[in-house]
Amino acid sequence: MTKLLILNGPNLNRLGKREPDIYGKSSLKDLEEELRSNFAEQLELSFKQSNWEGQLIDWIHEAEEKYEGIVFNPGAFTHYSYALRDAIASISIPVVEVHISNVHAREMFRSESVIAPVCVGQISGFGFDGYKMGLTYFLKRSG
Amino acid sequence: MTKLLILNGPNLNRLGKREPDIYGKSSLKDLEEELRSNFAEQLELSFKQSNWEGQLIDWIHEAEEKYEGIVFNPGAFTHYSYALRDAIASISIPVVEVHISNVHAREMFRSESVIAPVCVGQISGFGFDGYKMGLTYFLKRSG
Amino acid sequence: MTKLLILNGPNLNRLGKREPDIYGKSSLKDLEEELRSNFAEQLELSFKQSNWEGQLIDWIHEAEEKYEGIVFNPGAFTHYSYALRDAIASISIPVVEVHISNVHAREMFRSESVIAPVCVGQISGFGFDGYKMGLTYFLKRSG
Amino acid sequence: MTKLLILNGPNLNRLGKREPDIYGKSSLKDLEEELRSNFAEQLELSFKQSNWEGQLIDWIHEAEEKYEGIVFNPGAFTHYSYALRDAIASISIPVVEVHISNVHAREMFRSESVIAPVCVGQISGFGFDGYKMGLTYFLKRSG
Amino acid sequence: MTKLLILNGPNLNRLGKREPDIYGKSSLKDLEEELRSNFAEQLELSFKQSNWEGQLIDWIHEAEEKYEGIVFNPGAFTHYSYALRDAIASISIPVVEVHISNVHAREMFRSESVIAPVCVGQISGFGFDGYKMGLTYFLKRSG
Amino acid sequence: MTKLLILNGPNLNRLGKREPDIYGKSSLKDLEEELRSNFAEQLELSFKQSNWEGQLIDWIHEAEEKYEGIVFNPGAFTHYSYALRDAIASISIPVVEVHISNVHAREMFRSESVIAPVCVGQISGFGFDGYKMGLTYFLKRSG
Amino acid sequence: MTKLLILNGPNLNRLGKREPDIYGKSSLKDLEEELRSNFAEQLELSFKQSNWEGQLIDWIHEAEEKYEGIVFNPGAFTHYSYALRDAIASISIPVVEVHISNVHAREMFRSESVIAPVCVGQISGFGFDGYKMGLTYFLKRSG
Amino acid sequence: MTKLLILNGPNLNRLGKREPDIYGKSSLKDLEEELRSNFAEQLELSFKQSNWEGQLIDWIHEAEEKYEGIVFNPGAFTHYSYALRDAIASISIPVVEVHISNVHAREMFRSESVIAPVCVGQISGFGFDGYKMGLTYFLKRSG
Amino acid sequence: MTKLLILNGPNLNRLGKREPDIYGKSSLKDLEEELRSNFAEQLELSFKQSNWEGQLIDWIHEAEEKYEGIVFNPGAFTHYSYALRDAIASISIPVVEVHISNVHAREMFRSESVIAPVCVGQISGFGFDGYKMGLTYFLKRSG
Amino acid sequence: MTKLLILNGPNLNRLGKREPDIYGKSSLKDLEEELRSNFAEQLELSFKQSNWEGQLIDWIHEAEEKYEGIVFNPGAFTHYSYALRDAIASISIPVVEVHISNVHAREMFRSESVIAPVCVGQISGFGFDGYKMGLTYFLKRSG
Amino acid sequence: MTKLLILNGPNLNRLGKREPDIYGKSSLKDLEEELRSNFAEQLELSFKQSNWEGQLIDWIHEAEEKYEGIVFNPGAFTHYSYALRDAIASISIPVVEVHISNVHAREMFRSESVIAPVCVGQISGFGFDGYKMGLTYFLKRSG
Amino acid sequence: MTKLLILNGPNLNRLGKREPDIYGKSSLKDLEEELRSNFAEQLELSFKQSNWEGQLIDWIHEAEEKYEGIVFNPGAFTHYSYALRDAIASISIPVVEVHISNVHAREMFRSESVIAPVCVGQISGFGFDGYKMGLTYFLKRSG
Repeated sequence: MTKLLILNGPNLNRLGKREPDIYGKSSLKDLEEELRSNFAEQLELSFKQSNWEGQLIDWIHEAEEKYEGIVFNPGAFTHYSYALRDAIASISIPVVEVHISNVHAREMFRSESVIAPVCVGQISGFGFDGYKMGLTYFLKRSG
Repeated sequence: MTKLLILNGPNLNRLGKREPDIYGKSSLKDLEEELRSNFAEQLELSFKQSNWEGQLIDWIHEAEEKYEGIVFNPGAFTHYSYALRDAIASISIPVVEVHISNVHAREMFRSESVIAPVCVGQISGFGFDGYKMGLTYFLKRSG
Repeated sequence: MTKLLILNGPNLNRLGKREPDIYGKSSLKDLEEELRSNFAEQLELSFKQSNWEGQLIDWIHEAEEKYEGIVFNPGAFTHYSYALRDAIASISIPVVEVHISNVHAREMFRSESVIAPVCVGQISGFGFDGYKMGLTYFLKRSG
Repeated sequence: MTKLLILNGPNLNRLGKREPDIYGKSSLKDLEEELRSNFAEQLELSFKQSNWEGQLIDWIHEAEEKYEGIVFNPGAFTHYSYALRDAIASISIPVVEVHISNVHAREMFRSESVIAPVCVGQISGFGFDGYKMGLTYFLKRSG
Repeated sequence: MTKLLILNGPNLNRLGKREPDIYGKSSLKDLEEELRSNFAEQLELSFKQSNWEGQLIDWIHEAEEKYEGIVFNPGAFTHYSYALRDAIASISIPVVEVHISNVHAREMFRSESVIAPVCVGQISGFGFDGYKMGLTYFLKRSG
Repeated sequence: MTKLLILNGPNLNRLGKREPDIYGKSSLKDLEEELRSNFAEQLELSFKQSNWEGQLIDWIHEAEEKYEGIVFNPGAFTHYSYALRDAIASISIPVVEVHISNVHAREMFRSESVIAPVCVGQISGFGFDGYKMGLTYFLKRSG
Repeated sequence: MTKLLILNGPNLNRLGKREPDIYGKSSLKDLEEELRSNFAEQLELSFKQSNWEGQLIDWIHEAEEKYEGIVFNPGAFTHYSYALRDAIASISIPVVEVHISNVHAREMFRSESVIAPVCVGQISGFGFDGYKMGLTYFLKRSG
Repeated sequence: MTKLLILNGPNLNRLGKREPDIYGKSSLKDLEEELRSNFAEQLELSFKQSNWEGQLIDWIHEAEEKYEGIVFNPGAFTHYSYALRDAIASISIPVVEVHISNVHAREMFRSESVIAPVCVGQISGFGFDGYKMGLTYFLKRSG
Repeated sequence: MTKLLILNGPNLNRLGKREPDIYGKSSLKDLEEELRSNFAEQLELSFKQSNWEGQLIDWIHEAEEKYEGIVFNPGAFTHYSYALRDAIASISIPVVEVHISNVHAREMFRSESVIAPVCVGQISGFGFDGYKMGLTYFLKRSG
Repeated sequence: MTKLLILNGPNLNRLGKREPDIYGKSSLKDLEEELRSNFAEQLELSFKQSNWEGQLIDWIHEAEEKYEGIVFNPGAFTHYSYALRDAIASISIPVVEVHISNVHAREMFRSESVIAPVCVGQISGFGFDGYKMGLTYFLKRSG
Repeated sequence: MTKLLILNGPNLNRLGKREPDIYGKSSLKDLEEELRSNFAEQLELSFKQSNWEGQLIDWIHEAEEKYEGIVFNPGAFTHYSYALRDAIASISIPVVEVHISNVHAREMFRSESVIAPVCVGQISGFGFDGYKMGLTYFLKRSG
Repeated sequence: MTKLLILNGPNLNRLGKREPDIYGKSSLKDLEEELRSNFAEQLELSFKQSNWEGQLIDWIHEAEEKYEGIVFNPGAFTHYSYALRDAIASISIPVVEVHISNVHAREMFRSESVIAPVCVGQISGFGFDGYKMGLTYFLKRSG
């Protein structure tokens, strides 16, 4: 069964508590359950979250050996972490960038992603469903 | 059954013939068949394509009465057609922006979308699967 | 009696339905009636609207022979259609640019007009009255 | 009868003497007479002009108690006086921004107005008629 | 005999009437006659003009089957029509960009071409002779 | 006892009346009373306000002889008055820049201060308490 | 008694050793003592410092439960850490941004704060007294 | 004898006291004496200084009738006062712009003059001698 | 017979050796022979090349007396030599700017020409044929 | 013997695996061995690598006591980590910035270093030899 | 007697022939005669002109030994020759920058001088008199 | 023995005399001696310097036949000479860019190199040792 990593960046541990009108009322735990129940028989999912850029980089490096792909919500690192960009460029498994809110409809700085150019693609604005869309990409790919 | 419009903008009638290393080898017809066969029992899909900005605007206006949502690939209009942006802002049904290629990984002008701020969200880089992801948004929404 | 063309650009056919807090609740038809009743005895008015840039250009070209001036609301074309700008520069009758909302108080891109430099002047923010102000310019000019 | 203030900013006392190919040959006195004769029975008009930004701010503050609106030609202050902008934002009566010449067709710095975003609207390019257009806005409003 | 398309964009139907100090006094018809008489025995020329971006895109698509190359004056679309750029990129026959006036010596926005990067080259400033220069490119190429 | 000048710039005479959701409901008089009562036994305070840039410059010049420092809210002059900047640079007593609202959280033009580089420091966002903070700087300094 | 967190970002552990002409000769320990002795009877203060962005984010998240506010000197993170910005936006207790030196009077990049827009306000240029000013804000607020 | 106005803008009354390493140790009075003694028999000189933009504009307007030219040091107004620019453009006598220090060798904002484009020329960096250079222009012109 | 100067700027002596995929395999000598054989009976051609900006300026000055026009490939000077621009502006004979490669399709800095605004026109992308196109302009002109 | 720290930033642990056409095929271990064998008798070298910005800052702080200098490859932190810049500015031992690839010949964002201004100098493009060049600087300095 | 160098840059040998409405009708020879006759008894003047940047740099270097100052009109090199800037910075005698026309009133690129920051000052707009003004600076200085 | 060219650009002949706090007290002659004595048995070195861009281009062209590489300090040409960039791109031997001072720590315009993208790499900030570092690159390469 395809092994995938669901990786969440800074402040996403605050989901549910953080600005619910933008990010919704469900927590990261809810996301995990929702994804697991949706893809239980098709995908083997791991979940990690960190507010530490260095931790995320380390996990991305290790992912190459452990997983066949990453669904990654880089949070605010999206807009400036060239180090994360280089981490993704340094591995051979594909990465899908996901954002819960529509980053193109918020503050101007949120519409630029320094990470998207080294990802397969970007999905933004669909809430938790964005993660599912990302997973279907891997389902299809490995299927 | 939920009625949706799959709307394609300029040069997408060239799919298959046009720069296949970027856009793939399948035609717009192939897309239509693929989507119809995937969602046959769940969604009633209409397909339209035009290279004419005015035609797209007219169809968007009319869509409000006929469909429950639009999956829209605005092609190169993405980067300058404020008129399409206003057309979408003028209707009450949701619009999902889709791009076949990863617009964030190509020429710089392709990373800006003047349309995304008035859409539900944006999906780019997943080939035809991007359209399917867009449709699943509506499936879930109406479900 | 002075013949004038009232020309409306993209999405203005949506007036009344489109974002009423910005554009008001009256339709384009209401505008026509209001203007006709106000200037019935002084001006011979024609009304045209199109979402098609090419159509607007053709009408502007033809207007030179048929009218003594144009009151033009270019909608979102205001911000990028250099083709409309050249169309106006290519005719000898005067054109007045009108906007229903105060374009200077909305999104930043709306404060730039690529068309205004070749018009007599620009009027924005006065709702339908802006059109009337434009017509009084011609009344006085021909009077 | 509706009381309005016609406020003119820096260098407008030079009208008639100043660059007549841009601003015309009539003086500020001519403007006053023309407006008074046009609106004698409908509006009670006051006329003030100053080259002093501070004076204009003081008058705008006082205007709130004395008038029902202001027709304001801020002259070159249009392009940098955030203090005038704040003065207008601090009062509750509406202000209409007027320019004699078409500011969008001259030097680039003249196309930006830091004042327009807090006004009802902007009228430019119609000579003295711009002031009349501004007054008709108030006529209609109070009517 | 080599078949070529001479394609003219917005406002070029106004040639002769439009700003003659910039564009000269001859009409599009004159251009056609001049080119036909110059290349009668060497090239089979077709002439098309439209103010409609969508029409130009359609013709460019169709041109691939019918002609061996295009001499294209995109008019003001030069400066913003990424859709035309993509249309040209989507066909395999070469396109030469021509401008009657020297676009580099006029308003600043005219010096940028979003279309030139996908053309063989650009010729500007030589009046009707620019079209002839473009045709000699194809003559030589096919010869 | 240390003598200080509390200097307020344009539109601050409107405090209480002006956009109370941004600037609060208390007037400049209230500010004066609040500060006097807070520092009555420690500081000798003078209060001046003007909407006139020239007046503020004159007062700053004179302040050098009369006071040991200035707490200055330059209002909208903050963003463009290089003349005020030079006035402060020309005197030897320290100046503290204060803003009632958080200028960094409003329109973009408000986040730049051309005056701050020649002040001791800047305090923004704390309402009337910002002035008190500024005064404690001088208290400590002279203490 | 009101519990507050004094949070210091990168390189502030170097205080006293680091560029003393800019940051003064006292250490972070001195700051702690000074603040404790000043506010001993009024506030219960905690002190934390880290050079690790992730650590600061974690502490900000936890602070919501433990403290009634934060006085935060984000050091150089001020200028690029959108992740810290989002962390602050995700909690409901107020944060005051403090800088020891006058950031507006140094290198240009230091005058922009990506964090200030989500704080109560910003204080810069007053050395250790800036922290005290920040604490008085909370004193008054809770008082 | 040629009558000329020596006009000094904001903060120039501080000469001698103000940043002497930049502006020298002599006062405005010294300047007046130096110029008078140098040109006593050739020119009839008037001296005015104001920190008030409005006052400077009024004097420039009046100067047209009284003097044959102006030597003008606009101080910091140089960099933003479009109102002073328009004042100069509105009179028919020539104006020479003078700066004591070399404005091109200081802060970046000082290298731009919004006033120079409507003056005869600009002289900067020569201390009081700059004024003398300006006067010799008029001497020669009237001679 | 019309005398013309074919002037080539820096690095064009490297033609044939230099990046042949961009500039082709023929040398400057080949160009000379090709042009001479093509226009032998119609034009009297002189050929000069220099890597020295000053030499090119001198030749341009002298050309006014000796030739009826110049076909000029300024090489990389195109992008910054305002001195060459002024040299061309200082002579009365027409100059045609030619580039072998399509400068609009390469690095961004190559799309700006500081020289084109003072030339008759610009031709780029047609290899050696660009020079011939330039010569036909003069042929026709003198014919 | 001079003690030096060889410090490597984010993703450099991926050397050999990461984009070998850009960074070469040798690993960080190979670098260590190569440097040790080259400078064994002259320098006492320590090697550290981290993907964690905070860790790098801590090590830089500690380095002041332990080493006489640092050869630092900041990886992608080069382009945005003002915190690392401040860390280097806060210590008194010299730091040399090294890059394996030629950062000036890659994506535009890589040509800016926010760190270089506080280093002794920068070396880029020489592969592992860049580190050796950096070490020779210290050899010579201490020698 | 003070020895000075009058140095003229590119295209100034064309004076009199070159765009006489901008630069006047007198030649460089006329300038030389005019200056010699004006300062014959006070200054020993040398005149040099070159269109070659390298020549100008060489002369500036040599000038240090031979002259007490330079009056320099760098022509179009003003706007880009950082090499000339460095040449001036490398010598210890003062340099005065002179322009015949008012560079601030022409094309935008002419208002920036990369050379002025290392000169004593800049004089522009006074025709040949600008050189005289420059010479009086040295007269006074040496006097 | 490997033959290399040490090429120095504008103003480097002034070394020792020129701003010694930036460039040191040794002359170009000293550099030559130092390098020769350091590499006498390993490399055959030629030294050239010119202030003339054209001369440098010619030498670069000729170098291809004579040397196996170039160590090049382009001086101020670094920042604008696209002609030198093209010269380097046109030869097949490698070029190393060297700067004596740390160009990234000085005026902003010095941090951009238009030449570095076509060099092997760039070394800046190490005084004469930078040249030695450059030479070791070639030593190793040829070894």
